[in-house]
Amino acid sequence: MEFDESARRRRSVRKYRREDVPLSLVSELIDLARNAPSSLDRQPWTFIVVREAGTKQRLAEIKNRFCPPEKRAFPADFLAGAPVLIVVCVDGEEAGDRAVENGILAAAHLLLGAVGRGLGGVYLSAYHRDEPALAEAIRRLLAIPDHVLPVTIIPLGYPDEAERPKSLRPLEEMIRYEKF
Amino acid sequence: MEFDESARRRRSVRKYRREDVPLSLVSELIDLARNAPSSLDRQPWTFIVVREAGTKQRLAEIKNRFCPPEKRAFPADFLAGAPVLIVVCVDGEEAGDRAVENGILAAAHLLLGAVGRGLGGVYLSAYHRDEPALAEAIRRLLAIPDHVLPVTIIPLGYPDEAERPKSLRPLEEMIRYEKF
Repeated sequence: MEFDESARRRRSVRKYRREDVPLSLVSELIDLARNAPSSLDRQPWTFIVVREAGTKQRLAEIKNRFCPPEKRAFPADFLAGAPVLIVVCVDGEEAGDRAVENGILAAAHLLLGAVGRGLGGVYLSAYHRDEPALAEAIRRLLAIPDHVLPVTIIPLGYPDEAERPKSLRPLEEMIRYEKF
Repeated sequence: MEFDESARRRRSVRKYRREDVPLSLVSELIDLARNAPSSLDRQPWTFIVVREAGTKQRLAEIKNRFCPPEKRAFPADFLAGAPVLIVVCVDGEEAGDRAVENGILAAAHLLLGAVGRGLGGVYLSAYHRDEPALAEAIRRLLAIPDHVLPVTIIPLGYPDEAERPKSLRPLEEMIRYEKF
């Protein structure tokens, strides 16, 4: 699929058919993700592919435990029903203070690559700046070393919902010239 | 261009031909960027398009002033020679504590959309977690209000360099199953 179409058709999808996502597709997406920009081109990523029901359930519980009040309308229970989760981790010794940047840029490739393959996903944070216990709980569950930051959890599956129209803020409101 | 090809051919480009980048292309890229995921779909972005020589020069100076030691090999002087800079800003009152995430995801769309249009750019941070003076200097220069965070500066231009091969870390080293 053309990049422009992938960007326009991407939606945040939280409901998936039971159909499995072939590991070959997961690999293809991670292959695209490792092409993302990274600090000094260090490519400091580890992608943990989670398919075990118990682990998905535990990740849902951890996300719910640290859910901020304004996001209670979006509980993470659906993670348990996603065919596959990709936890994007970044080595802090490689990425320096840009671990978050490096992780998010790779996640953008995962989400965009998914669209043309008929898959849907959603961006979920795996850390919180002011609440280190979130990343710490994920580290313990997935045996992630201390110097590695879990940045995002990207669930993927075949959407079990119709493609919703997206209402966009007007472009002219978003663009400024020379100054804010 | 297909998304997969855009992802694989994207490079960090810091040297541009003098040729101008039409504003219509800049608009197209920002149109794609506003389709990125954002917290609660608030679309909290403002994209400041900078083409004035003096402003580009000042941004280069600010970036150099706050350059960390390990990145001294990549001075920001080239910003002054880029035909256009897009400063991606995020309204912190809309994005809550996920301003950084929202800004980076939009920047990924800008960088990927540029590839199929023959343009090149590079990801540059406009804030530093431990050095608020960086964002503050950019805020003053571009009249950005306090509640808005400049997240990234994306210079764009037609590459004045051959497409370099990219050496990627082996995929099997980056993928783990179920645990780190």
